[in-house]
Amino acid sequence: MILFYHPGACSLAVHIALIETGMPYKLVSITKDKRTSDGRDFLKINPKGFVPTLELDDETVLGEALAILAYVCHRTGTLLPEDGRVRWQALEATSFMTTEVHGNFKPFWKNAPEPEKENARQALVKHFDILAGQLGNQAFLTGDRMTIADPYLFVMLMWASIHGIKVSERFDAFFTRMNALPSVAQALAEEGLA
Amino acid sequence: MILFYHPGACSLAVHIALIETGMPYKLVSITKDKRTSDGRDFLKINPKGFVPTLELDDETVLGEALAILAYVCHRTGTLLPEDGRVRWQALEATSFMTTEVHGNFKPFWKNAPEPEKENARQALVKHFDILAGQLGNQAFLTGDRMTIADPYLFVMLMWASIHGIKVSERFDAFFTRMNALPSVAQALAEEGLA
Ligand SMILES: N[C@@H](CCC(=O)N[C@@H](CS)C(=O)NCC(=O)O)C(=O)O
Ligand SMILES: N[C@@H](CCC(=O)N[C@@H](CS)C(=O)NCC(=O)O)C(=O)O
Repeated sequence: MILFYHPGACSLAVHIALIETGMPYKLVSITKDKRTSDGRDFLKINPKGFVPTLELDDETVLGEALAILAYVCHRTGTLLPEDGRVRWQALEATSFMTTEVHGNFKPFWKNAPEPEKENARQALVKHFDILAGQLGNQAFLTGDRMTIADPYLFVMLMWASIHGIKVSERFDAFFTRMNALPSVAQALAEEGLA
Repeated sequence: MILFYHPGACSLAVHIALIETGMPYKLVSITKDKRTSDGRDFLKINPKGFVPTLELDDETVLGEALAILAYVCHRTGTLLPEDGRVRWQALEATSFMTTEVHGNFKPFWKNAPEPEKENARQALVKHFDILAGQLGNQAFLTGDRMTIADPYLFVMLMWASIHGIKVSERFDAFFTRMNALPSVAQALAEEGLA
């Protein structure tokens, strides 16, 4: 199984999850002009051109962070219970982050005009506040065990720090705890970010 | 179970899915100042303030279109197989639409400056092209049976038409087929859009 990624992109959440679930994978990075580091045309693999993209051993291709995370959990029986409150809250939180949080970081990458960035900044502050409220004093976003929402939240907090979005101190302990995990250290090292 | 909605919003996809799955529901609409039509403060129910939001009979609240759609299918065993190609493609397509397609309609609602709208328009044209390629000559997005991706695609095509986004003619037969379904007619009528 191949994970197509960019260092520090939202694909890092999938990368951490793959390590946590024990699923074997190979990493292949994508260049700006959409070539893969193993010499292929990435748009032929995934016409959407996004990372994360997963290529299974039978060459099936799966895109979209949330779908990939749910797939990996389904195969391995980890990070997302089959039913119950934690499952639905983890899916809700992950969807909230892939839609609203991730979406509002885009003006920063494409260096949009300042008013567009300012709107995005205000939305991000509100959205992180909601996530901080949900986290409360728990170890992870939906309780005392990690789900798919946590590696994704970890990456969003890295981005908040890079783009100067001020987030609640409630995240400090969470970020420190995630950062200290062997899976996170390994993923950061493999992406050249350690 | 209550579905909080706005007429013609992305909550319409959940509304159609609820009817298709046979899940009983009550509809409650939200005013611009976030009051529910049954007289409550919507932000106390879902601090994110978004529709669709589902309130279960035990008062558990679930937000985010994709999470709600997956939940309803899990309860009823319809519109999303438990595993296999169709499941993962349907989740991928729905995530692609909740993130990239839905996200690029936002500049039109908030009447953003023209350059921002123009960027969004170009992204939407590309994204709908990818979806048209996936649809091909199939009856539904992932094959000959409806999944959660189809009511969502139907709503996105309604929005494309409202905002003058030109989409492939490949969608014509799909749109006509969906529009002719009793579930769609009922949902549109219940939202006052018939
Ligand atoms: N909807 C996609 C978005 C993925 C996405 O935007 N990935 C970024 C990196 S974080 C990317 O590939 N950008 C390259 C591009 O936009 O061309 C998902 O949730 O996975
Ligand atoms: N990420 C949410 C987005 C939902 C959303 O944006 N809903 C719109 C209607 S289509 C809404 O409630 N807008 C009201 C607002 O933004 O205050 C989802 O996928 O369900």
